[in-house]
Amino acid sequence: MEFEESGIGEECGVFGCVAAGEWPTQLEVAQVLTLGLVALQHRGQESAGIVTSNGASPPTYTSHKGMGLVSTAFPPEALLKLRYGNLGICHTRYSTTGFSELQNCQPFVVDTLHGRIAVAHNGELVNARALRKKVMRHGVGLSTSSDSELITQLLALTPPMEELDTPDWVARIKNLMTETPTSYSLLIMFKDVIYAVRDPYGNRPLSIGRLVPISRLHSPGAGEEDTEGWVVSSESCSFQSIGAKYYREVLPGEIVQISRFGVKSLSIVPRPEGDLPAFCIFEYVYFARPDSIFEGQMVYTVRQRCGRQLAIEAPTDVDLVSTVPESATPAALGYAQQSGLPYTEVLCKNRYVGRTFIQPNTRLRQLGVAKKFGVLTDNFAGKRVVLIDDSIVRGNTISPIIKLLREAGATEVHIRVASPPIRFPCYMGINIPTKEELIANKPEFKDIAGYIGADSVEYLTVEGLVSAVQEGISSFQKENVSSQKEVGHCTACLTGKYPIELEW
Amino acid sequence: MEFEESGIGEECGVFGCVAAGEWPTQLEVAQVLTLGLVALQHRGQESAGIVTSNGASPPTYTSHKGMGLVSTAFPPEALLKLRYGNLGICHTRYSTTGFSELQNCQPFVVDTLHGRIAVAHNGELVNARALRKKVMRHGVGLSTSSDSELITQLLALTPPMEELDTPDWVARIKNLMTETPTSYSLLIMFKDVIYAVRDPYGNRPLSIGRLVPISRLHSPGAGEEDTEGWVVSSESCSFQSIGAKYYREVLPGEIVQISRFGVKSLSIVPRPEGDLPAFCIFEYVYFARPDSIFEGQMVYTVRQRCGRQLAIEAPTDVDLVSTVPESATPAALGYAQQSGLPYTEVLCKNRYVGRTFIQPNTRLRQLGVAKKFGVLTDNFAGKRVVLIDDSIVRGNTISPIIKLLREAGATEVHIRVASPPIRFPCYMGINIPTKEELIANKPEFKDIAGYIGADSVEYLTVEGLVSAVQEGISSFQKENVSSQKEVGHCTACLTGKYPIELEW
Amino acid sequence: MEFEESGIGEECGVFGCVAAGEWPTQLEVAQVLTLGLVALQHRGQESAGIVTSNGASPPTYTSHKGMGLVSTAFPPEALLKLRYGNLGICHTRYSTTGFSELQNCQPFVVDTLHGRIAVAHNGELVNARALRKKVMRHGVGLSTSSDSELITQLLALTPPMEELDTPDWVARIKNLMTETPTSYSLLIMFKDVIYAVRDPYGNRPLSIGRLVPISRLHSPGAGEEDTEGWVVSSESCSFQSIGAKYYREVLPGEIVQISRFGVKSLSIVPRPEGDLPAFCIFEYVYFARPDSIFEGQMVYTVRQRCGRQLAIEAPTDVDLVSTVPESATPAALGYAQQSGLPYTEVLCKNRYVGRTFIQPNTRLRQLGVAKKFGVLTDNFAGKRVVLIDDSIVRGNTISPIIKLLREAGATEVHIRVASPPIRFPCYMGINIPTKEELIANKPEFKDIAGYIGADSVEYLTVEGLVSAVQEGISSFQKENVSSQKEVGHCTACLTGKYPIELEW
Amino acid sequence: MEFEESGIGEECGVFGCVAAGEWPTQLEVAQVLTLGLVALQHRGQESAGIVTSNGASPPTYTSHKGMGLVSTAFPPEALLKLRYGNLGICHTRYSTTGFSELQNCQPFVVDTLHGRIAVAHNGELVNARALRKKVMRHGVGLSTSSDSELITQLLALTPPMEELDTPDWVARIKNLMTETPTSYSLLIMFKDVIYAVRDPYGNRPLSIGRLVPISRLHSPGAGEEDTEGWVVSSESCSFQSIGAKYYREVLPGEIVQISRFGVKSLSIVPRPEGDLPAFCIFEYVYFARPDSIFEGQMVYTVRQRCGRQLAIEAPTDVDLVSTVPESATPAALGYAQQSGLPYTEVLCKNRYVGRTFIQPNTRLRQLGVAKKFGVLTDNFAGKRVVLIDDSIVRGNTISPIIKLLREAGATEVHIRVASPPIRFPCYMGINIPTKEELIANKPEFKDIAGYIGADSVEYLTVEGLVSAVQEGISSFQKENVSSQKEVGHCTACLTGKYPIELEW
Repeated sequence: MEFEESGIGEECGVFGCVAAGEWPTQLEVAQVLTLGLVALQHRGQESAGIVTSNGASPPTYTSHKGMGLVSTAFPPEALLKLRYGNLGICHTRYSTTGFSELQNCQPFVVDTLHGRIAVAHNGELVNARALRKKVMRHGVGLSTSSDSELITQLLALTPPMEELDTPDWVARIKNLMTETPTSYSLLIMFKDVIYAVRDPYGNRPLSIGRLVPISRLHSPGAGEEDTEGWVVSSESCSFQSIGAKYYREVLPGEIVQISRFGVKSLSIVPRPEGDLPAFCIFEYVYFARPDSIFEGQMVYTVRQRCGRQLAIEAPTDVDLVSTVPESATPAALGYAQQSGLPYTEVLCKNRYVGRTFIQPNTRLRQLGVAKKFGVLTDNFAGKRVVLIDDSIVRGNTISPIIKLLREAGATEVHIRVASPPIRFPCYMGINIPTKEELIANKPEFKDIAGYIGADSVEYLTVEGLVSAVQEGISSFQKENVSSQKEVGHCTACLTGKYPIELEW
Repeated sequence: MEFEESGIGEECGVFGCVAAGEWPTQLEVAQVLTLGLVALQHRGQESAGIVTSNGASPPTYTSHKGMGLVSTAFPPEALLKLRYGNLGICHTRYSTTGFSELQNCQPFVVDTLHGRIAVAHNGELVNARALRKKVMRHGVGLSTSSDSELITQLLALTPPMEELDTPDWVARIKNLMTETPTSYSLLIMFKDVIYAVRDPYGNRPLSIGRLVPISRLHSPGAGEEDTEGWVVSSESCSFQSIGAKYYREVLPGEIVQISRFGVKSLSIVPRPEGDLPAFCIFEYVYFARPDSIFEGQMVYTVRQRCGRQLAIEAPTDVDLVSTVPESATPAALGYAQQSGLPYTEVLCKNRYVGRTFIQPNTRLRQLGVAKKFGVLTDNFAGKRVVLIDDSIVRGNTISPIIKLLREAGATEVHIRVASPPIRFPCYMGINIPTKEELIANKPEFKDIAGYIGADSVEYLTVEGLVSAVQEGISSFQKENVSSQKEVGHCTACLTGKYPIELEW
Repeated sequence: MEFEESGIGEECGVFGCVAAGEWPTQLEVAQVLTLGLVALQHRGQESAGIVTSNGASPPTYTSHKGMGLVSTAFPPEALLKLRYGNLGICHTRYSTTGFSELQNCQPFVVDTLHGRIAVAHNGELVNARALRKKVMRHGVGLSTSSDSELITQLLALTPPMEELDTPDWVARIKNLMTETPTSYSLLIMFKDVIYAVRDPYGNRPLSIGRLVPISRLHSPGAGEEDTEGWVVSSESCSFQSIGAKYYREVLPGEIVQISRFGVKSLSIVPRPEGDLPAFCIFEYVYFARPDSIFEGQMVYTVRQRCGRQLAIEAPTDVDLVSTVPESATPAALGYAQQSGLPYTEVLCKNRYVGRTFIQPNTRLRQLGVAKKFGVLTDNFAGKRVVLIDDSIVRGNTISPIIKLLREAGATEVHIRVASPPIRFPCYMGINIPTKEELIANKPEFKDIAGYIGADSVEYLTVEGLVSAVQEGISSFQKENVSSQKEVGHCTACLTGKYPIELEW
Repeated sequence: MEFEESGIGEECGVFGCVAAGEWPTQLEVAQVLTLGLVALQHRGQESAGIVTSNGASPPTYTSHKGMGLVSTAFPPEALLKLRYGNLGICHTRYSTTGFSELQNCQPFVVDTLHGRIAVAHNGELVNARALRKKVMRHGVGLSTSSDSELITQLLALTPPMEELDTPDWVARIKNLMTETPTSYSLLIMFKDVIYAVRDPYGNRPLSIGRLVPISRLHSPGAGEEDTEGWVVSSESCSFQSIGAKYYREVLPGEIVQISRFGVKSLSIVPRPEGDLPAFCIFEYVYFARPDSIFEGQMVYTVRQRCGRQLAIEAPTDVDLVSTVPESATPAALGYAQQSGLPYTEVLCKNRYVGRTFIQPNTRLRQLGVAKKFGVLTDNFAGKRVVLIDDSIVRGNTISPIIKLLREAGATEVHIRVASPPIRFPCYMGINIPTKEELIANKPEFKDIAGYIGADSVEYLTVEGLVSAVQEGISSFQKENVSSQKEVGHCTACLTGKYPIELEW
């Protein structure tokens, strides 16, 4: 199978829902979960899993997992099977590690002496290797390579388990958070409750929403008395498609309990003295959907600001500004606004080509990524173009695009990248090519413009990116989030400065 | 399964390829066909079929058909099976009629006394019913409801068949063209040749391209001596993704023979005296991919002109111009340019939601098409918006979008439609809702703004559309297409003026 | 894929059902059709098709076709779709010819000037090639290589068609029967009627059954007033599994009309003077299920008689008689009864192995067909065995079995075959290996025992087979079938004497 | 979906293979495993799993699991993936428990501090519930409901783990065997070795075979020097189909190590003083394939002896003996031999009907299991029949068969069952209907003949069964198995006497 592009990949998305009010609920929980997860599909397309609970004592859990997109993985029969749930969590997954693919699919469900729990995880434990050893030394066999299983075994291990009517899961979660500082956003379902947890550094996002009656959705004043249920999601973009209103973010280090009675903050586990939060800056730059809200600001707005900043840092003398559709469009519009240059479309994406089988070693392979784009020749023939991209990872995607534009008559093609060069690996949940594959670490990077065939190439600076991100937060923070005055972001892949020391 | 939106649908796309030079060819014909067809996927997603020929005497034909997208319908095994072809045609299909779905899938292949032929058809024969009767009266049973079978039987019927070494297919094709004036773009494969045919009114598009070595693709001067093969396609947008250069359109009424020796115009069957060409104007407005070229002009450019014209005909006093992504974007940019208003994105499309199973009668259904869009609130909250759409067919899609925008804080939402209201059925290959379903024919249309919840709604005039389309042609025509001086377009769905008289 | 055994194959099975009494019927016609077809699965496993009609004026036909076993080809959704039928026909298919597999799947449905008909066919037209030419010369294109399409086009062709309220299909069927003498058993559905037709030589079987209420099934006296519907099937074995009672055979040359009012013989088209019937004798020997009834006798009984006759013609001095499970078991039991030798099982069949993927060129391939059999060592170790087989086509199946038995301790292994050697091709619907592949035509046949490793090999004589078959008929014929006093069987594959002269 | 019959079900089959000689091996280990597992398909059809190891330090394990039959679960791609294994184990599974089906599929693979192990299990731990508690009390979460996971966690737990080059797995296995007395036959793969383990009561079978060159297979004297590999299987019937010779059984309580150097008995864990072995007697009666060898005797022979014993205990005055095909055939032949009555076939099984979809509440459902059988009327009409069945569990299968025979003309139908009535549940790996569902526990059992419509019904006595089973063992035992002089069988489902005390 063809696999030309290999950029950077998100690890996962998590989503949960608890029906409010009387149970059995009238709310179609399994449908809400599915549709909520579909809205997180950009965070992982490999497999998807769902677990619902009826919330009874003891609870009945129903689960379904499948390979591929949510629409494939959750066929109508599966949703039928899950329909009696009053609450549930689900997960969509990006990468394949380990050797039985479906087995690594989350949520992970285990029986413990306290009862059955289900865990969905977005992130990557920085000290996973040491923790696996620790768990195995305790005499536990680990059946998958996934952090989720490790997390469930860690939750079960300490403090020692007893058969209890009301087990203290919060103590276990707090203990887990002392064992591993980052990176995780977790949903833990136990009987009739979901615990939503973000690591102390807040490295991965997690937001809470409130389901309101569709009829009240468009009346701004719908109060809490109308709540039909609570949802929790890696990104708030999923709220729109299920008729939920944005409620708030889970804070770094926070353990939130979501039950049919509402949302309750149970604890905020602090970071080590002096450490700043380390929310992944690439969620803004690349991963998140533009309509998601992080730290009180819309991702689209941040990307637009990056484009504006880029126009200040790296102006060009050209005839028009354009975008590599479609993730770079907000930045391109920002660049156009700041520079005063006209925003013009030069490429048209073919949505279907990606999944077609192409035999290796044929003339068609040589076309590379150009197969995915149609050229809007008349829009730029005889003109000088600045093309905005959101990131350049390997350089093998942008190069054939530049060739395309030149062939179609662009007299100059300048590249401006709305983020700094990626130079370092991520150990916190992002799949970045090896250091050697990153264009920024190659000798060719010295003449990157020559290498990819552009007239000039410039990147946004790290300072520019950080200020574009943080500019919109400070005012919001002061007003809204009293418990968390500091602002900080993980820029490790750009700077090599990891939020915590890595010992392997 | 959920099926909320039901707009207008294209009937089909056709694509063909003949390897140039010595046979057996080194060109991966089956791959070229597949990728070319993928680029026409927007014209039909229901099923796909492919037939290749080795071109020998007698020829061996290999065929594969499948349901769904090209990527699903043509698995690697199928391509393997087809790999010895030196030429071939393929087809992607939109609608389901008749009762054995795969059976209706094209190309249609039949054995005749002259040998085996394969036919792929885009369009709809206006006098199909009478022709079916005629053929059946001759004692022929028709095994499908498709026009393609009818066309093949008509080709076989007249003149009477004899076993010949060099049958005169052109005479048969000409005879067919006298039997049925429109609407069809046809690919007919016989042994080592493809006949590309467009009806005398030129109702459906058909373009020819030339495959050049990938290494020469980016050198403008690649001459005919470099030709690796010839392709023919419903739309020129497919040439980009296979490394072909645009060559020319098949003209209305023209029969073109494509062989390994090149492209040869065999005949141009004339229209009745006084009749103008009738190329479907909705190919420009809605169906075609924006990077396709018809009548010498890029579809994107026409849409942009429609937007400009709309701004002249129907200005608004608002803060920003936006689009219903993504087909209306060129028109929206045109409107913005003409009006001087800033172009701003207000919606973000979720590509995955469409294929998810939703149970009927649930709260999620009530969300309607809004599930497909994320709202970029910060871009327009507190502002007056004019939203450009390319067409409003039933009115049930735009209405929930307007609600979304208002809820998110738009103070005014005006709708401008970059085409006139659709009021009449199409009998020439476009699937339009019944007259009663069309919003323009409903009583509510009198207060369309009130009905869909907009502050104002205005449509482009028919004159405005026609002039926006034809403005770019005249100059081109004079210079390039000597054989066809007149310009005309079918606007039947807007005006009720059909290019030929309809007798049923 | 592994394909070690390649014996002789049946071409197809056909099945039809018409609900009796008031319509819409309460009878689950689609289910009856499916289950009836399942009972004919041994006649073809490649693909299956079904068409139902509501019987209205004009009728609505619903159809479904699929690859593989009936259980795979007809999923629950398909049956749901078909459930409003008041009558229907279906077909299961053996071989792959032509190039679009599903397309060749029957029943074949066509629109004619008389209306829509559906045709299911078991057999093979001996003069198909000439008839195809004839039809194509008339200007008809043939879209498949199947005889069924040819039959439908022949039915449509003569006499010339007119639009009639009550078309004379019987005249058309009679005309067809003059065009092609054999081999066919046909079901032709038109609106509210099924015509069941057997060629004048009666080469392929066709039987009629009567559906009675399940509650009355076990009361022998259930009269015609209880009839819930009528069924027609290639073999009567299918009646048991749907709760139908055996009614009678369709006679050679007979056209029977089955409607909701019952069964009516419309005509018997005669054979040329002096020609005997030519029912395929291999239906008795090999193809049919043992519980089917042909010509008034149970197939099992005929096979048992063959075994008895074999014991008379070819006795052995051994310790026990056994069978190659499981088709040869009736003959083995007959041999045991006649010879007085004890019947003992020596092999145990593994039903699952056949469908497993085996890589070529491995040690496992060398095991050959032995992989399919377990050896019941203790039953025969140290003993002399005579093994009865129903036929030896190529000799590559029996050889490894003999090795198995010897290795497990059989002191002698004698082979007795309950049919004569196959020496000639069949042109009437049976798939026989080429003349060169048939062991009986190879030089090695002179020492067949040595070639396959047996101590001795003997076959039943043609005379022995014919008398074993006809012994049970004569008395039945005299009493029951007044219209058809003669008895005759096609033994062409054994003797080269074909029922009609073959001209190609 | 229809599910008429619900008898008793086996839990699983296990199979393993180690290539002998130099590694990488030339032996196609994955193919041997697959084909060996296919031969155990009758022990479980729900899902199948396979794990191979290259045997290196550290080893690479490759695994594949799938739902359905082995042929479906292991497609060619999967075998390709597994082809570099030098050893491997596999498993086929019967029942669905737990909520993620594929997750419960074996072999179970876990990482431990000692390295990765794979475990395949046939049986059921009698004290599973207590052991789960114990493991969970240790702080382990259990992700499945399968005993296999429990076994792996128990192996990991005691003695405490250390990172060792040569971990003492035998000590761990011995410890496991003290924790749980029965029921299990286990294959444990670690790096380059398979441990084959049978519980001290020998409740489930396990046999070892030796792969010899195919060319030497039929020469009886093939010595150990020719060994190509070693296989271990739930039943010896699988040896035939892979070209292996029967070597010996794993003894009750024995731990056998199978490596490329051969087979080595490591230990025999004893039963409590005074306890007899408890090999499941129903393996003889019902589960095992007739060509398997247990305790030195062929299963077929035991069944035949049961039939003979039944003829002595429960003679009938009838005209013929017959069988419910095909599991009861050996007993029926035994009954015929002992009684002198002729053995005659009366039923013919339709192999395809089982998997067809039947709508509930239709006339076809009323036909019940009769749909699966064709009646060989002429063989018994007007005669008195004794029908031998192997067991009657619920009584709903035999009843419609008796009706069938009567309707077809049997004047008397007597039932003789070649095993005693099942009255008690099994806790050792067999899936028996609940006590209330068992016909032997219902009030109707007093007049069972009347209830099922037979003229008489009689069962084999427990004493009769035990003597029929043990008659063939004693002589064998004396000669061959010095270490295990006693003979004993578990008859708990018949007598309620469980081999060990059950505490829940």
